[in-house]
Amino acid sequence: MQHDMDASEWLNTPEPLRLSALRGRVVVVSAFQMLCRGCAEHSLPQAAKLHQAFAREDLVVIGLHSVFEHHAVMTPDALRAFVHEYRLGFPIAIDRPQSHSALPATMQAWGLRGTPSLMLFGRDGVLAYEHFGHLDDLRLGMVLGELLAHSAPKATAVAAAAADSPAPVCRIN
Amino acid sequence: MQHDMDASEWLNTPEPLRLSALRGRVVVVSAFQMLCRGCAEHSLPQAAKLHQAFAREDLVVIGLHSVFEHHAVMTPDALRAFVHEYRLGFPIAIDRPQSHSALPATMQAWGLRGTPSLMLFGRDGVLAYEHFGHLDDLRLGMVLGELLAHSAPKATAVAAAAADSPAPVCRIN
Amino acid sequence: MQHDMDASEWLNTPEPLRLSALRGRVVVVSAFQMLCRGCAEHSLPQAAKLHQAFAREDLVVIGLHSVFEHHAVMTPDALRAFVHEYRLGFPIAIDRPQSHSALPATMQAWGLRGTPSLMLFGRDGVLAYEHFGHLDDLRLGMVLGELLAHSAPKATAVAAAAADSPAPVCRIN
Amino acid sequence: MQHDMDASEWLNTPEPLRLSALRGRVVVVSAFQMLCRGCAEHSLPQAAKLHQAFAREDLVVIGLHSVFEHHAVMTPDALRAFVHEYRLGFPIAIDRPQSHSALPATMQAWGLRGTPSLMLFGRDGVLAYEHFGHLDDLRLGMVLGELLAHSAPKATAVAAAAADSPAPVCRIN
Repeated sequence: MQHDMDASEWLNTPEPLRLSALRGRVVVVSAFQMLCRGCAEHSLPQAAKLHQAFAREDLVVIGLHSVFEHHAVMTPDALRAFVHEYRLGFPIAIDRPQSHSALPATMQAWGLRGTPSLMLFGRDGVLAYEHFGHLDDLRLGMVLGELLAHSAPKATAVAAAAADSPAPVCRIN
Repeated sequence: MQHDMDASEWLNTPEPLRLSALRGRVVVVSAFQMLCRGCAEHSLPQAAKLHQAFAREDLVVIGLHSVFEHHAVMTPDALRAFVHEYRLGFPIAIDRPQSHSALPATMQAWGLRGTPSLMLFGRDGVLAYEHFGHLDDLRLGMVLGELLAHSAPKATAVAAAAADSPAPVCRIN
Repeated sequence: MQHDMDASEWLNTPEPLRLSALRGRVVVVSAFQMLCRGCAEHSLPQAAKLHQAFAREDLVVIGLHSVFEHHAVMTPDALRAFVHEYRLGFPIAIDRPQSHSALPATMQAWGLRGTPSLMLFGRDGVLAYEHFGHLDDLRLGMVLGELLAHSAPKATAVAAAAADSPAPVCRIN
Repeated sequence: MQHDMDASEWLNTPEPLRLSALRGRVVVVSAFQMLCRGCAEHSLPQAAKLHQAFAREDLVVIGLHSVFEHHAVMTPDALRAFVHEYRLGFPIAIDRPQSHSALPATMQAWGLRGTPSLMLFGRDGVLAYEHFGHLDDLRLGMVLGELLAHSAPKATAVAAAAADSPAPVCRIN
């Protein structure tokens, strides 16, 4: 996987992102279709949570709208409405449609099996992990923690983990 | 925190565990009280999930029953019934009660603020992370991924993450 | 509200349904938009659960796709793809678009405030309850139980409630 | 089931409750054990929700602590600590222990099969519905709606259902 994402259009970003330009950061690419239920209910909320939890210098979250079915209705305009209604704020690439295949260009080049799919790139820009289907938070966190730790200026994960919890506690008086 | 856990009794293990003997593995100590709601609903199920997900050579999960209130009813026998009903399978240390304090010995020595509390020790046996309250899966995973990666014989986290997901997917035919 | 639903098209039914022809049954009309997040995540799964739980002679569930925004992308074809991906099996009326208003005909005639909206009709065909937003299961069940009991040949609700539960139990040996 | 509850003690009420004195109201009796996981996680939170949602003149929620295992540790003092930690506010009867049986008196007289168990009494004081295991909100609501409607001075269920919902909506501007 030497290629970058091949996008026909980008949302939520003033200019296209290129993996090669993000060297030094961990990059999460979340491939989805707007009418894929597992995407809407699990992987996109998870991507949004990641996007909010991290400083951009450490981790960049990118959505990849890879339409391989229902092409006529999952158009860029439909995606824009979806992104608005679901309040998605991270950059989203529209995987380039191909006239000779039902699969869009990046999905085909990367050999994705469907949606949701998750691709994690290390700070060196190399694909470190790929998953078809939803990856639960614990396992995703583990891979990210490892990737963030590699060649990091400081212990990013441990620092980032310090967050408040809404669950009830028993406090010593 | 140079001391080991000071336990008056152990459950789910034929013999006491000592942190010093677990050098080379990541150790998760989950301090709880059986009648602490946040423990029963969040931190103990999470500890059980960790205990199931990992090979023992990589990660060891230890429960620490640190009773600092309602001492008369959170007895070892009550804990045994609780552990049975909640199907907890990981080793559990009963933090040693002290006659001169409401706090048990390990809780006091470690300066814990209440329950649930989470202590993560790296492969070097040093406390790497501590959290009072429930730590969500994503953040816990990140810290663990980083700790597991340090001096690991192989890329543990990435390997361990390969698990199936029950969430719905859209598969390319 | 004397009018029936004014639909331009129906899905999941060989022929249009009319409220007037459903006299004698309780009817649940769940107004939604396919790109309304609260609909996709809460009210439509609830409608599907109702559709599965009841005999058709007692209760009929009808979806009403009332598009009042993003008209260009929430087309009948897009809805068909959505219904397929979300595995919705109950009859769905497409609320008739109007050239002079952003609101479709039934939504306007019924004075709905948005989506999701729930309308419950008693066995007498009269609107008994209306709710804008998601109605939780307990409250929805209460209204349905009351409506089903009115003039019912038998105690429907009590009979229908006998279902198994997946939650853990403590059984007397 | 002609007998009333046979309790050795009551919590959260200045004096014992008797079903016979609650004629005219719907009564929900939720039998539980404090160390029964399905009770702690499902049936007791549901009972607490019912207790908060209804006016006492319409519906009375009663907990029944029916200990049939681990007797030595599920004592009244332990229950008090549990009730405090889980913030349970509804009246709770401690089912009377019996020297000749592991089952407490009410549990045996009522023929309960274990915990959680739910008994719903109509306004006429007659047992209308019984369920072993957790009963989901929709089905519980249906039975309650029917019971509340019987001989009610007004349409209780429909009136009670008017509550706000935290789920996202799409509002017509």
